Amino acid sequence: MVLDRIQQLAHQFTATIPPPHPFDPLSTTEIDTAVSIVRAQHGNLNFNAVSLYEPRKAQMMAWLKEPSTASRPMRAADVVAIDASGKVYDGVVDLGEKRIVSWKHTEGVQPLITMEDLQEVEHIVRKDERVIEQCGILGIPREDMGKVYCDPWTIGYDERFGTGFRLQQALMYYRPSVDESQYTYPLDFCPIYNAQTKKIIHIDIPSVRRPLSKAPPNSYHPEAIEREGGFRKDLKPIHITQPEGVSFKINNRIIDWQNWNIHVGFNYREGIVLNNITFNDKGTVRPVFYRLSLAEMVVPYGNPEHPHQRKHAFDLGEYGGGYMTNSLSLGCDCKGAIHYMDAAFVNKAGASTIIKNAICIHEEDAGILFKHTDFRDESMVVTRGRKLIISHIFTAANYEYCVYWIFHQDGTVQLDIKLTGILNTYSLNPGEDTNGWGTEVYPGVNAHNHQHLFCLRVDPNIDGPNNTVFQVDATRGPGEAGSAENKYGNAFFAKKTKYTTPREAMSDYDGNTGRTWEIANTNKLNEYSKKPVCYKLVSREVPPFLPKPGGLAWKRAGFARHAVHVTKYDDEQLYPAGRHVPQTSGDPSQGLPAWIEEAEASSSNSIDNTDIVLWHTFGLTHFPSPEDFPIMPAEPMTVLLRPRNFFTRNPALDVPPSFARTPSQAAKGVDACGCKKRSEGESVLV
Amino acid sequence: MVLDRIQQLAHQFTATIPPPHPFDPLSTTEIDTAVSIVRAQHGNLNFNAVSLYEPRKAQMMAWLKEPSTASRPMRAADVVAIDASGKVYDGVVDLGEKRIVSWKHTEGVQPLITMEDLQEVEHIVRKDERVIEQCGILGIPREDMGKVYCDPWTIGYDERFGTGFRLQQALMYYRPSVDESQYTYPLDFCPIYNAQTKKIIHIDIPSVRRPLSKAPPNSYHPEAIEREGGFRKDLKPIHITQPEGVSFKINNRIIDWQNWNIHVGFNYREGIVLNNITFNDKGTVRPVFYRLSLAEMVVPYGNPEHPHQRKHAFDLGEYGGGYMTNSLSLGCDCKGAIHYMDAAFVNKAGASTIIKNAICIHEEDAGILFKHTDFRDESMVVTRGRKLIISHIFTAANYEYCVYWIFHQDGTVQLDIKLTGILNTYSLNPGEDTNGWGTEVYPGVNAHNHQHLFCLRVDPNIDGPNNTVFQVDATRGPGEAGSAENKYGNAFFAKKTKYTTPREAMSDYDGNTGRTWEIANTNKLNEYSKKPVCYKLVSREVPPFLPKPGGLAWKRAGFARHAVHVTKYDDEQLYPAGRHVPQTSGDPSQGLPAWIEEAEASSSNSIDNTDIVLWHTFGLTHFPSPEDFPIMPAEPMTVLLRPRNFFTRNPALDVPPSFARTPSQAAKGVDACGCKKRSEGESVLV
Repeated sequence: MVLDRIQQLAHQFTATIPPPHPFDPLSTTEIDTAVSIVRAQHGNLNFNAVSLYEPRKAQMMAWLKEPSTASRPMRAADVVAIDASGKVYDGVVDLGEKRIVSWKHTEGVQPLITMEDLQEVEHIVRKDERVIEQCGILGIPREDMGKVYCDPWTIGYDERFGTGFRLQQALMYYRPSVDESQYTYPLDFCPIYNAQTKKIIHIDIPSVRRPLSKAPPNSYHPEAIEREGGFRKDLKPIHITQPEGVSFKINNRIIDWQNWNIHVGFNYREGIVLNNITFNDKGTVRPVFYRLSLAEMVVPYGNPEHPHQRKHAFDLGEYGGGYMTNSLSLGCDCKGAIHYMDAAFVNKAGASTIIKNAICIHEEDAGILFKHTDFRDESMVVTRGRKLIISHIFTAANYEYCVYWIFHQDGTVQLDIKLTGILNTYSLNPGEDTNGWGTEVYPGVNAHNHQHLFCLRVDPNIDGPNNTVFQVDATRGPGEAGSAENKYGNAFFAKKTKYTTPREAMSDYDGNTGRTWEIANTNKLNEYSKKPVCYKLVSREVPPFLPKPGGLAWKRAGFARHAVHVTKYDDEQLYPAGRHVPQTSGDPSQGLPAWIEEAEASSSNSIDNTDIVLWHTFGLTHFPSPEDFPIMPAEPMTVLLRPRNFFTRNPALDVPPSFARTPSQAAKGVDACGCKKRSEGESVLV
Repeated sequence: MVLDRIQQLAHQFTATIPPPHPFDPLSTTEIDTAVSIVRAQHGNLNFNAVSLYEPRKAQMMAWLKEPSTASRPMRAADVVAIDASGKVYDGVVDLGEKRIVSWKHTEGVQPLITMEDLQEVEHIVRKDERVIEQCGILGIPREDMGKVYCDPWTIGYDERFGTGFRLQQALMYYRPSVDESQYTYPLDFCPIYNAQTKKIIHIDIPSVRRPLSKAPPNSYHPEAIEREGGFRKDLKPIHITQPEGVSFKINNRIIDWQNWNIHVGFNYREGIVLNNITFNDKGTVRPVFYRLSLAEMVVPYGNPEHPHQRKHAFDLGEYGGGYMTNSLSLGCDCKGAIHYMDAAFVNKAGASTIIKNAICIHEEDAGILFKHTDFRDESMVVTRGRKLIISHIFTAANYEYCVYWIFHQDGTVQLDIKLTGILNTYSLNPGEDTNGWGTEVYPGVNAHNHQHLFCLRVDPNIDGPNNTVFQVDATRGPGEAGSAENKYGNAFFAKKTKYTTPREAMSDYDGNTGRTWEIANTNKLNEYSKKPVCYKLVSREVPPFLPKPGGLAWKRAGFARHAVHVTKYDDEQLYPAGRHVPQTSGDPSQGLPAWIEEAEASSSNSIDNTDIVLWHTFGLTHFPSPEDFPIMPAEPMTVLLRPRNFFTRNPALDVPPSFARTPSQAAKGVDACGCKKRSEGESVLV
C-alpha cells in the first residue's frame, strides 16, 4: 500500500516536473521509493547506502548526444544493506520500473562505517567494565567515565579478527571538561568494538603504560582564547560583495559559467562528482571530461609499533566523504554570493535524510589573468581573472578536508584540497622518546608521522571518449656541450612516451624531469601546432607511498603505489580500493591492482586511443610540529588539468580588461578603458 | 657650488625630519647628492646605477639591537658609471661625510642594460642600411621600416665579440600596424648593436630564410577583440572593499601587521627587498629573516641552433627587476585598500627619477585558516585567514613577472610568482619542422622551449644569526614488511642531513623523498618537541637546469646548477651570477661557484651554526602551446617558508572566528559568535 501511494505521488510529480537528469543524485523521494521496494521484497534491513546507480556510459553518451530521441538511461538506485544477522546485500533497484534488478548476498565484505555506526561506540565504551578498569589504571576514576571519549575508526584490518565481524577500533581520549580538546589527552589503550553485537570484544594494551597527562588543556575554543589574553582586535573587515549577483546560471544541477558547462553530482562516498564537463569554444561545445571525482584516499601512519599499523584510514571508502560532509548552514565558509546544494542520503532505518548546504558554489576574483606592458610606451593591457569554485568540506573524526573544484576562464581545471582540523594524537610519557615516528607537539602528546594520499579519478572526454595518455619528461637534447649538434649545450625538448597498456602506465612522479602526463585525443591535431589536442595533468605534491611492498597498507591501498594508473573504461570500476573497503586484507589487493591484472591477462588490454580512465594519486607527507596543534592551520595542495594544444589561442582574450591602452592611444595620450577610483585608498574594478 | 647648496638643503632636512632608516632605499635627494659628489671629482659620466650601499651586517645587527646607543651604519651610495670611452667604474659614496669612499675602474665587465639603453636600439636598427636590406629580403619594403621593431636584449655572451664592447642583440619583429602584436611577425635575422658606437656591427643571418609571415594579425587589444565578436558580457562585478581601511600600520617603510614586522626596501636590481623580518610571539619579538629577495634569474631557451643559444636572459642581473618595474598608477592590479610605494633611480644623465606606485601593499582574504567540527554534536569553529601581500610587477621585453611576497597569520612566508605577458617568438616557414625545440603557436610563429629559473636569496635570522641547514627526506623505516622491527611495513620518518660545508650543501630537489630543507637554530630547541626551532623551505617547482655541464648557460648561470646552495654570510655576496652579468663568459663562473670554490679552498668553510645564506633556485620548464598566445594566461608558482618547531602552538589561534560553538553551547542550543547575513545570496564575514 505504501508502494501504491508512492507510485501515485510519483505519477503526480511526473505530470508536473521534468524527470531528473540521469546524473542527478537520488532525491529523498527516490531514496524512499527504493527502500520501500527493497523492504517489500526483503523485509527489514539496516541500510548502509542508497545512492544513484550511475547510468551505463554507452547509453548515457548516446543520450547526451541526442537527449530528445535517444532512450533515457535507466533511473536506478544502488543499494547496500545489512540484515540482522550481519549479512551484506548489494542490489540495484530500477526506480522507473519499480523493481529490483539485482540482489545478492555478498560474502566476506564489510560496507563502510556510517556516521550512525560511529556515534554509537562511545556510549558503549564508557559502560564497558574492562574499559573502566583500563581508565582506572591510567588515573581516571569510574565516576569520570563521562569524560572519556573515543574516535571509533573502522579496524582497518587486523589479522586476529578477519573480515567476518563488523569491527571498529576505539581511539581513546579524555576531556577534563566537555569543551576542552580531547586530543590533548590521548589514552594509551585501544578497545575493539563489534558493531553486530554492540560489545567490546578485545582491548589492545601496550606493554609500557602511559598515565593520563597532567598538562593543562591546550584548546582553541573562544573561552580558552579569552583566558589567554583574548582575540586580536587589529583585523579590519574585508567585504566581498556581488551586488548584481553571480555570473553563473544554474539549471537544476547544471552550471553554465564562462563557457564551462558542468553537471554537479554528489554521493555518499566521493562527495562532489562532476559530470559531462564541456567548454564552449567560440560556439562549438567541446567535451572535456565525462566525470571527475576524488575516488579514494588513504592516510597511512608511520609508527610501526602495534597496533598503530591499523591507522591507515581510507576516509572515502571506509567512511564516505559524502556522509561526513559538513552542513554549511552552520557557518559560512565562503564569501560573496553563494549558491548551495543539499545532499540526500538514507539512514540506517531506511529513511531519507538531508545535509543542508552540503555543496557551496561561488565565484572568486582570481587576480591577474594576463598583463602586458610595452616597454616602448605607456601602452598596456591588464585583465583580471575570475574563478568558479564548487566545494564541500568533510570531517573525518579529527581531520578536516576542504575540497575545492576550481574552474578558470583559460580552460584550466584545478583541484585544491586544504587540510585542517586536528592531528591524530597518541600518549607519550614524560621523557619518552618518539623514536622518530612522531613529534611531541605538547607535553604528553605524540603526533605520529603520516601521509594524506588522494586518488583523483579522471574519466576524460577530450573531444570525444577515445583518448590516450602520454608521459612527458623535460629531457636534455643529444650531444654534449661542444658537439656539432649541441654546441652550446642548451638543447632540451619534451620527451613523450605513449602508454599502450595499463602495466606500462603504472608510473611515478619524476621531479628530475618535471614529469607531467598528457591526456590526448590523437585523432585530432591542433590546427597550428599539429600536436594532438590534450589536457595536461600538472601535479607536484606527489610523494611516493611510504608503506613498504608487502606491508598491510601497501596491500590494501594498491591505488597508492603509483602516481598514475590508466585503465580501460569499465562501468563497474569506480572505486580504486574496491567497493567495500573496511576489513579488506589486501590478499589479494582489491580495485586497481586486480583490474589491471585482469586486463593484462586478457587480450583487451589496450589503452591506446580508446575510452580510458586515469587515476592520479597525490598528497603530502606530514611530519607534525607544535605549530599544527591544537588545531592545524590549513595546508593547501593543488592539482591542475590544463589545456595544451586544445585551443588555437588563449580562450580568455575576450574577458573585459581592467585597463587597456594601445600604442596608438598612448601616443595620443588617450586614457582608454580603465579602473574607476571610488575613494582614497579603495579601488573597485568592474 | 651645487654641492654646497645640497649640503645646505640636507642640513635643513636633518633639522626637521629624522634620518632615513639604514635599510631605506636612497631618496631622490640622496641620489642627486651622490651624483654631485662623483661629478665633482670625476667629471662627466653616464650613470648606470646609484643605489643603496647596504649597511654592513655586523654594524647593522648592532644598531638594530640598540638603535638609540649603537652607532648608525654609514649611509652610502653604490655607484656604477661608464665614461665616454666605455670604461666602467664602481664606487661607494659616503652620503653623511659627503665623500667618495672607494672608486675603481673595473676592467672586463659590462654593467646591466638600462631601459634607456633598450629604448635607443630600435631607432638605429630602422635606419641601418644592412638591416633595411635584410628586411627587403623578407618582403618588407624600405618605406615600411617604421613597422619594424626590435626587442634589444643584451648579447648574453658571444665568443666572437667578447666582453670589451657593450653589445645588444636585436630580436626583430614587424607590426602591420602600430597596435598589432609584433610577436606574430618575428623576423629571422639578428643584428648586433654596439652601445658605445651606437652602430650595428654585425647581423646574424640564418642559412634558410623565412619571409615575413602573411598570416593575419593575432592580437589581444580591445579593437581586435571587438573585431572578433567583442568582449563577453556575462561577468557580474565582484567588489572587494575595506571601509575601515587596512589592518596594517606603516611607519615610513616598516610594516606592522598581524605580529609581523617588515622593512620594505627596493633596488634597481632585485626589486623588492625585505629586511629585518620579525614575528611578535606573545610579546617576544623574534627575528626570522635578516633579508629576503629574488636575487637573480635565468631563462635558458632550448633551441641549439645558432644564435638562439644567446637567449638565456638574466632578467635581474642583465636588466634589473627594479628598473623594469611597472608603475601601477597606470592600471590597478590589486583590489581592496592599496598602499603604494614609489621607487627612485638614477638616469643615464645622472638625474634622479621616480617610478610612481612601484610597490603595491595590500591585504587579501585567505579563505579558511582553520576549521574543526565535532562529529558528535553541532559544535564547530571556523576561522578565516588574512594575508598581507607586498608585490611588484616587471616587464622583461615580452614577458611579465608578477612577484608577490605573502605573509600569513600562521607564520608562513610565501613567495608567489605569476608568469604572464608574451612568448618570445621566432619565425617558421610554412611546413617547417620545429625539430621539437619549439611549438608552432600560430602560423609562422615558433615559440621555443624555455625555463624560468629564479634564485631566492634567504638570509635567515631564525632566533639569531647563527643558523644551520638540514636536508629533510621522507624515508622508509628499516626492516622489510614481516620483520620484527617493521612487521606491517608502515614505518617512516624524516631523515635529516646536516650541511656542514658549502660543497655538501649543493643539493637538488628529490621528488622521491619529498625533499625539504630546514633552516634551523640548533642553539634553541622547541620547548615541546625538543627539536631545533626552524623555518622549512617547501618548494615543489624545482626542475633541474637543463643546459648541459660545460655549456654556455651552464657556465654563466652557476647558481642554477642546484636547487639549494648554502654559503657563509659575506657582505659582498649579494648576486649569485656576479655583480656585472652581461657578457660574462662563464670562464670562470661568477658568483656562487666562485664563492664556494674560494670558501672550500680556505679553512673557514663551515656553514654549521654560523651566519649563513641559503640560495634557492626554483621555477618551471615551459613547452609552449597555442593557448599561451597571443598573450599568456598567468601561470603561478609558489615557494613556502614555514615555521616548524618554531612556535609552541598554532600562532593564529587568537584570530577571531567566523563561527564558533562549543559542545556545551551546542548542547544548550546556543548560537555563539556567528556570521552576519546582509541579504539573500550575500554574506559578509567580519
